[in-house]
Amino acid sequence: MSEYTITVIKNENPKSKPASDELKFGKYFTDHMFIQDYNMEKGWHNARIIPYQPVALDPAAMIFHYGQTVFEGLKAYRTKDNEIQLFRPNKNMERLNRSNDRICIPPIDEEFAIKAIKHLVKIDSDWIPAAEGTSLYIRPFIIATEPYLGVNPSATYQFIVILSPVGAYYESGINPVKIAVENNYVRAVKGGTGEAKTAGNYASSLKAQEVVAKEGYAQVLWLDGLEKKYIEEVGSMNVFFKIDGKVITPQLNGSILEGVTRNSVIEMLKHWDIPVVERKISMQEIYNAYESGKLEEAFGSGTAAVISPIGELAWGEKKIYINNGETGELSHKLYDTLTGIQYGKVEDPFGWIVKVSN
Amino acid sequence: MSEYTITVIKNENPKSKPASDELKFGKYFTDHMFIQDYNMEKGWHNARIIPYQPVALDPAAMIFHYGQTVFEGLKAYRTKDNEIQLFRPNKNMERLNRSNDRICIPPIDEEFAIKAIKHLVKIDSDWIPAAEGTSLYIRPFIIATEPYLGVNPSATYQFIVILSPVGAYYESGINPVKIAVENNYVRAVKGGTGEAKTAGNYASSLKAQEVVAKEGYAQVLWLDGLEKKYIEEVGSMNVFFKIDGKVITPQLNGSILEGVTRNSVIEMLKHWDIPVVERKISMQEIYNAYESGKLEEAFGSGTAAVISPIGELAWGEKKIYINNGETGELSHKLYDTLTGIQYGKVEDPFGWIVKVSN
Ligand SMILES: Cc1ncc(COP(=O)(O)O)c(C=O)c1O
Ligand SMILES: Cc1ncc(COP(=O)(O)O)c(C=O)c1O
Repeated sequence: MSEYTITVIKNENPKSKPASDELKFGKYFTDHMFIQDYNMEKGWHNARIIPYQPVALDPAAMIFHYGQTVFEGLKAYRTKDNEIQLFRPNKNMERLNRSNDRICIPPIDEEFAIKAIKHLVKIDSDWIPAAEGTSLYIRPFIIATEPYLGVNPSATYQFIVILSPVGAYYESGINPVKIAVENNYVRAVKGGTGEAKTAGNYASSLKAQEVVAKEGYAQVLWLDGLEKKYIEEVGSMNVFFKIDGKVITPQLNGSILEGVTRNSVIEMLKHWDIPVVERKISMQEIYNAYESGKLEEAFGSGTAAVISPIGELAWGEKKIYINNGETGELSHKLYDTLTGIQYGKVEDPFGWIVKVSN
Repeated sequence: MSEYTITVIKNENPKSKPASDELKFGKYFTDHMFIQDYNMEKGWHNARIIPYQPVALDPAAMIFHYGQTVFEGLKAYRTKDNEIQLFRPNKNMERLNRSNDRICIPPIDEEFAIKAIKHLVKIDSDWIPAAEGTSLYIRPFIIATEPYLGVNPSATYQFIVILSPVGAYYESGINPVKIAVENNYVRAVKGGTGEAKTAGNYASSLKAQEVVAKEGYAQVLWLDGLEKKYIEEVGSMNVFFKIDGKVITPQLNGSILEGVTRNSVIEMLKHWDIPVVERKISMQEIYNAYESGKLEEAFGSGTAAVISPIGELAWGEKKIYINNGETGELSHKLYDTLTGIQYGKVEDPFGWIVKVSN
């Protein structure tokens, strides 16, 4: 890897920090940000940590027109011993580069990026809340900045990292959500950009989300875009079902985001010798399992909630009630163990934790 | 419609203008831009024309993360009598609002927007080139500006219009292009965002474009995302085929952009009593027509090129050569008539022209 050189300009006017109980997701931002520039000549260069500030771009900058952009999401956790730790940041940087490849953005130096993220988190470590379940959300993203209206990969980019202290996802303990299966709108299709973490996938999901929110559902469950039969993922989570003692999750097929939490759940289940398979699953199969009393648990997995039990699934007129709307035993155990590792309360047998102090 | 109030701040340091023969597409921008803000309280407000300048946004602004953005593209033409005219701007503003609806952006006031565009074009009218085939490209776009990382519609937006003097699309007269049929990547699918003019659709097209460009093709022809059988559109053009005296174009199906030029071609053909149908067309049908000698012409339609004859279509190993790689008679006539109306050389029987001076 390249040498680690980075300029730091400290913020002389730090903001006041929100109280732990005021925290929401992605509303508050810390005092510093990381930026690095790209051009054809120099590649990625001028890495710097500077005071959190607006980004000024030419109105013709390609990000505003053709959506050439990718992002990531991970968290820094404060342990009870006051250590700061990250959870599998290498996975996020690998995925960032896979997203880059799909969207024709030049790859970043993954090791360098992790060092820069650790550096930034350390500088703003006072912002990492300590209350149960709180953390510091880290948002790396890359935007195309060339002022040019041709539909072409940009010649210049900025790689930016911002930090946001976030509250506990579950205010009163882990709690099941109601999810609606989406039958009209499509998020992604094989050959599209579904497996990349890129803006357009989220823009296309807003409408479906708006419709189901009115009916009291927290998120949509996306079906495949081709036949609208097979389960893909939830808004910003992958999805798992426990049927007759076995755990299944949709296989990666080119249109599903490969979640870091998904991968961690699979590893954990294997570690526990609980059968887990990645394969195609149709909604009909889930419905049949429900009718025959074999659908034991369902949950989403993602960085924000870690594990989000599903208490009810609405599939058109059909309603599927899971585990009496209560959090299942396995969902609970996964949640406790994963968050336990993240907050340093439970031993990490996988080498997933990266300490910021090192 | 609401009252037309707009603040104008003149640019005191105008740039020097590029020579007509230096013009490219979307590389140069004029001295002014239009901006209007949106928030929940005031709706769209603070319409202003200001010196062309960078847009400064919080790094957490939603446009950088979730792609909530839409755009349009139209042109202002200078006639030989030195009048400035627009071509069907109402169509573009109607489409902008359809795109807004799909991406959960609040609708704009279409009439107001047209007035603002005319006003802006008038202020920068010295930038409209006079040489044959040149024009002023107008790029209205809306971006989500709320600094918030939740996947939700933004609470604030900016509507911006920038102007770019553009060169003649065909340097040496209208000329056929080589197009490759795309068999791996998918641009859009029914239920997705294909019929909206939104950034993500273009981001997803970059990779396919990159692959075919290496093989010497100008653009890709997209097939439907479901079966990869039916023709959708070209990179930034709709597509027409003349087979056995009849013109066919893919029907609007939710994944194709409804081009203003497409609509104008259809109207024009009807006006000329040339049979034209909108329906599903498979690549196999085109290939069969070619083999039986009935494929007479093929062309793309879009604001940039107006009419772009297709001389060769590569469909995997199969090559389709159209009209000996020359511009067909109908393509030529459509090009001449449409550009004739746009530049005020030919009578406009449809009421498509909107004069800027009015
Ligand atoms: C579409 C989508 N699927 C799944 C996930 C879960 O991925 P991860 O576990 O890496 O957070 C996310 C969130 O990051 C997402 O946006
Ligand atoms: C995807 C796509 N299809 C078709 C078109 C043609 O539309 P119009 O004729 O309105 O320029 C465009 C260009 O605007 C486009 O971007």
